[in-house]
Amino acid sequence: MSLRAGIVVTGTEVLTGRVVDRNGPWLSERLTELGVEHAYTLVVADRPDDVRGALRFFADQGCELVLTSGGLGPTEDDLTAQVVADFQGRPMALDAPLEERIWRILENVRVRWPNIDEEALRASNRKQAMVPEGATVLEPIGTAPGLIVPPPEGIAGPTVVVLPGPPRELQPMWRDAAATPELQAALGTATDYELRMLRLFGIPESEIAETLRAARDGGIDIDSLEITTCLRRGEVEVVTRYEPAQAEVYAAFEQAVRDRHADTLFSDDGSVVDDQVADALLAAGETIATAESCTGGMVAARLTDRPGSSAYVRGGIVAYDNAVKTDVAGVDASLIAQHGAVSEEVAAALAAGAISGLGADVGVGVTGIAGPGGGTEEKPVGLVWFAVTHRDGRSVTRSVTIPGGRADVRDRSTTVALHLVRRLLLGTSGIPGR
Amino acid sequence: MSLRAGIVVTGTEVLTGRVVDRNGPWLSERLTELGVEHAYTLVVADRPDDVRGALRFFADQGCELVLTSGGLGPTEDDLTAQVVADFQGRPMALDAPLEERIWRILENVRVRWPNIDEEALRASNRKQAMVPEGATVLEPIGTAPGLIVPPPEGIAGPTVVVLPGPPRELQPMWRDAAATPELQAALGTATDYELRMLRLFGIPESEIAETLRAARDGGIDIDSLEITTCLRRGEVEVVTRYEPAQAEVYAAFEQAVRDRHADTLFSDDGSVVDDQVADALLAAGETIATAESCTGGMVAARLTDRPGSSAYVRGGIVAYDNAVKTDVAGVDASLIAQHGAVSEEVAAALAAGAISGLGADVGVGVTGIAGPGGGTEEKPVGLVWFAVTHRDGRSVTRSVTIPGGRADVRDRSTTVALHLVRRLLLGTSGIPGR
Repeated sequence: MSLRAGIVVTGTEVLTGRVVDRNGPWLSERLTELGVEHAYTLVVADRPDDVRGALRFFADQGCELVLTSGGLGPTEDDLTAQVVADFQGRPMALDAPLEERIWRILENVRVRWPNIDEEALRASNRKQAMVPEGATVLEPIGTAPGLIVPPPEGIAGPTVVVLPGPPRELQPMWRDAAATPELQAALGTATDYELRMLRLFGIPESEIAETLRAARDGGIDIDSLEITTCLRRGEVEVVTRYEPAQAEVYAAFEQAVRDRHADTLFSDDGSVVDDQVADALLAAGETIATAESCTGGMVAARLTDRPGSSAYVRGGIVAYDNAVKTDVAGVDASLIAQHGAVSEEVAAALAAGAISGLGADVGVGVTGIAGPGGGTEEKPVGLVWFAVTHRDGRSVTRSVTIPGGRADVRDRSTTVALHLVRRLLLGTSGIPGR
Repeated sequence: MSLRAGIVVTGTEVLTGRVVDRNGPWLSERLTELGVEHAYTLVVADRPDDVRGALRFFADQGCELVLTSGGLGPTEDDLTAQVVADFQGRPMALDAPLEERIWRILENVRVRWPNIDEEALRASNRKQAMVPEGATVLEPIGTAPGLIVPPPEGIAGPTVVVLPGPPRELQPMWRDAAATPELQAALGTATDYELRMLRLFGIPESEIAETLRAARDGGIDIDSLEITTCLRRGEVEVVTRYEPAQAEVYAAFEQAVRDRHADTLFSDDGSVVDDQVADALLAAGETIATAESCTGGMVAARLTDRPGSSAYVRGGIVAYDNAVKTDVAGVDASLIAQHGAVSEEVAAALAAGAISGLGADVGVGVTGIAGPGGGTEEKPVGLVWFAVTHRDGRSVTRSVTIPGGRADVRDRSTTVALHLVRRLLLGTSGIPGR
């Protein structure tokens, strides 16, 4: 029987989508690494009754561990610590030394905003230094301390780990929390799971459904594995979680996927196409540059997402206006006149322009109709032409018609572009060398 | 007493963060528009027991309405329809005409992938055409139909609206669902709320906490409003929800914020800085171009995010490598040698290069150290220099040291850049003309 945990993400701004939650997913991965079963993430408004209802739900579900994120800030709607203290029956008291430690941290704020209201800052400070009786304090990374709050004395129930909302505070603080004797004791009973991921590009999800059926019909006990598939940015991901005793069943299942999808399976080791492109460029000692129209810089932004990308990214041109295509990216105006800005010829000229204009080995050209306007019968919204060219003359061009809205077309285009770069560099669509 | 609703987002891929949920936030906004109280979004793995537990939770919370997203696909882990049918005590049966309608939709898939396994497709098709007894079918946008499933005959409980996971299917289908007599009847009892948003840039959140305290001390009954504040990409958002009877209280509160924060309040009408920059450029009939280093194209990508941005965005240069800064963006190499690539002088030269190289009226230059490497004592990771220059000679330059990791530095930089563009164009930091 594995340890079960729940995550409570507080904040009306998250519930209503003004802020995208990064903590639930991040904590979920950490729990999985520790062998803890994570069943739910509950996003809840900043209302005491609702936060209390969330804690009650996880207690009723038999969770031994609840992690909360958010609601530790200085404003009045930040009420997580108080609600957790009440729920665990542990009154709050001021921790004076903690108050002083927070005050020292706030010196930076006072230096940065010299005209700040010092009394206001003091009041915020004091609020953040209130600690439930018997709780373990996790030292602040920003200004808010975290808490490990045990269930009421002598009563069974979840231990609640209270963490701040900003990911750069939550992440190091969770690592501190996981290292405490209090949590180590709670985690002692967790089971280890294996987690594997296969990624495929260029097939519909129904083909994977059929592979699952075929594997079962072929005698592979796939029901002893926990397999989930999903379509993400145009890639199909097959994630399997299993107990170590099922390793042979998993191996047989993975082989079945490999046999049926050799040409579209591109990752079996957790790597994403971004990793593979970066590694291939680094291995070859080559550089890349972009000349993009409809994606408006998103391909360059994605290529430079990774630390160290300056070793292989020269830069790019965002050739949004046709005059920029001709004057900066070096596209012959007659190509645009003859074939239109969204065409194989212009994509290829953009890729060539990226190479010559920015001095790169590999050039990426993207031109398309992101919509909602600008589509015609012949060239509908969603049509995007790609060209990836190497200085040595190799080249791949491709057009795709991407369904969905403007954001979908732009985002999916970055994925297609990266896969074409991968194909040009590795000369294959599937996993090389198998 | 207002109608309460809950949202269940299914999918292990969402729970574990491989996919970012866009449906919970979107549906939350729709519920708020309809005056429905949305208390929770529950993200749940693709496990029948856990999905059942989610439905039970919302029923126990007294929700009259539950919306689910996801789990309607063709693979075996897509089990939402079956679990909801069981929960509502309504056996599933094949809807043969629906099966045929889905089959016709699948013709596109068969054309696109001519070698597809037709039997597999038929089986997926049939699974998606199973409908619980007494449920209302919502016509497929993709291939999966949605469902409105009432509680068991004669028993109180939530109506469950089952929607597909892909946002471009879910969104139109929700509009269809909301127009059905079944949902109209359920929504009849909802209260109308007002929702207002104030946005500020360039102050810490503790200042807003103090404003709330001051407003209360000044006799404004802010406890009759539901105010939430949050820090988002460097902006402070103050969102207030209130019943129409509290309109005067809200007006007094808003005035208090306006009085204390005239210089940093930049939006009181829901507009984001992106809207304001776009409107200002359109109103002036001017164009913009970028020359970015550390943000790698993200500022250009953000400017071109909006439909119709081709009217004012010329394009950009991603000057990642120093040679691109000099050769393409026209930065004098001696400036880099003398001041370093991350400097006020180089930011200004990039902005000037964007104007002259791309023929724009306004140029944006960004250069910084996104990290994790490359920082020095004098120029730490997170230091970013910005310049926004107008062809007529006006210019704003600014440096910021942004805390957090590489992604934070890059993302926050796009916000700072947009605010500087806004300031240059509108000549003010706060809301103009008040």
